[in-house]
Amino acid sequence: MKKKIEVCCDSLEDVIIAEKAGADRVELNNSMHLGGLTPSMGTIKLVSERCVISTIVMARPRGAGFCYNDYQYDTMVADIEEMMKYNIAGVAFGCLTKNKEIDIEKNKKIIEILKKNDKQVVFHRAFDCVVDPYKSIEILIDLGVDRILTSGLASKAVEGVELLKDLQKKYGQKIEILAGSGVNESNAKYIMDGTGISQYHSSCKTWEIDPTTIGNDVSYAYANSPHENEYNVVSYEKVKELINIVKE
Amino acid sequence: MKKKIEVCCDSLEDVIIAEKAGADRVELNNSMHLGGLTPSMGTIKLVSERCVISTIVMARPRGAGFCYNDYQYDTMVADIEEMMKYNIAGVAFGCLTKNKEIDIEKNKKIIEILKKNDKQVVFHRAFDCVVDPYKSIEILIDLGVDRILTSGLASKAVEGVELLKDLQKKYGQKIEILAGSGVNESNAKYIMDGTGISQYHSSCKTWEIDPTTIGNDVSYAYANSPHENEYNVVSYEKVKELINIVKE
Repeated sequence: MKKKIEVCCDSLEDVIIAEKAGADRVELNNSMHLGGLTPSMGTIKLVSERCVISTIVMARPRGAGFCYNDYQYDTMVADIEEMMKYNIAGVAFGCLTKNKEIDIEKNKKIIEILKKNDKQVVFHRAFDCVVDPYKSIEILIDLGVDRILTSGLASKAVEGVELLKDLQKKYGQKIEILAGSGVNESNAKYIMDGTGISQYHSSCKTWEIDPTTIGNDVSYAYANSPHENEYNVVSYEKVKELINIVKE
Repeated sequence: MKKKIEVCCDSLEDVIIAEKAGADRVELNNSMHLGGLTPSMGTIKLVSERCVISTIVMARPRGAGFCYNDYQYDTMVADIEEMMKYNIAGVAFGCLTKNKEIDIEKNKKIIEILKKNDKQVVFHRAFDCVVDPYKSIEILIDLGVDRILTSGLASKAVEGVELLKDLQKKYGQKIEILAGSGVNESNAKYIMDGTGISQYHSSCKTWEIDPTTIGNDVSYAYANSPHENEYNVVSYEKVKELINIVKE
């Protein structure tokens, strides 16, 4: 099967770089430092106007877990309804119950909005926090999810190879499996050979300096030394390199 | 002068709590863990529909500093133009040059958009990273900024009392000064007495549990122990207490 690279992006600039480097798809976030939250409306608008690459937009209203109260869920739904006005390929999201099971009702309503608008339905790594991945993936298939982004319930995909392989083998004909978390040029070949998965999600990050991050006694640094004056951007070279390895 | 409390909010729920507790104004962000970024369109939409409290919306496209390239600046402008469609009071933003001076050109264009739409112009704590606060505040006054959020160039407002007092004394008739960063019920009286400032910005944060934050070998925690399964929300009680202290 044709291999695909999805690049996890945090800005308009990231999407432009990923597109130029030849990625197949992007996942558009902000706050990747918090694991990715819903991007701003300006980001979505400019990406949909200036880029042609297939774009999945993150809908995640806050950091921490995936058990949302009504305020948070209403915000997700309002965000997704606004996103439908733009030229995007789909939405990544994931709602869990407090018992770490798939929240059927909450996800179902979102899936209905996406299907009605002919958008791809992507369940993100909330999947990696569930109690039972087999029961969960069967529920997601029944709900009509097109794709799951997962690391095989491990911190990094390279540690989740056994489960990823089993999920791909058992369910790969019914749902797309996108392997992500810590996938990079050094381990992509190993994960591919070990799992048989054909899609890889990677942030391909590098650093850019902003000399105004620290001033006087004030610091807006979010990264540790030596990156305290820096922020993340997608690396053209890393995307290129990952594509070469995965598609060779 | 009548004292005012502005509560720094991270969600629709936060705004509803701050409003119920009697705050005068909110600043609406997401990713407060990164110092506050531009909130999602759904958040702005629902706040403008469900709340009546005066709402200033953050326009900050990424973490780290405030020296934006064209992609980041275009995103800010697109975000602010979209925000103008909603019932909000104003926008908080701040652009610096790489030399830590006020970026006159970039801020001017944003101020023009806000003035044209009768919105309040708020320069945020990018101000606390500038080289020369006196020169900078004079530029902001000339540009027509209504208010500056500042900690007096210190990490916390309680450490910046001397500069805050001097700025309020010299410029308080020409521009509103909003004291913020680490302002809480224990130090608000001290800062008020020491500076003569009449407006205070506080996040009044507490914690809420999300039991799906950590699962298997995966953690989406953004806070340190003992808060690793938690996320921040505004505390009704803390807002009430701060109002009582500031307005007594």
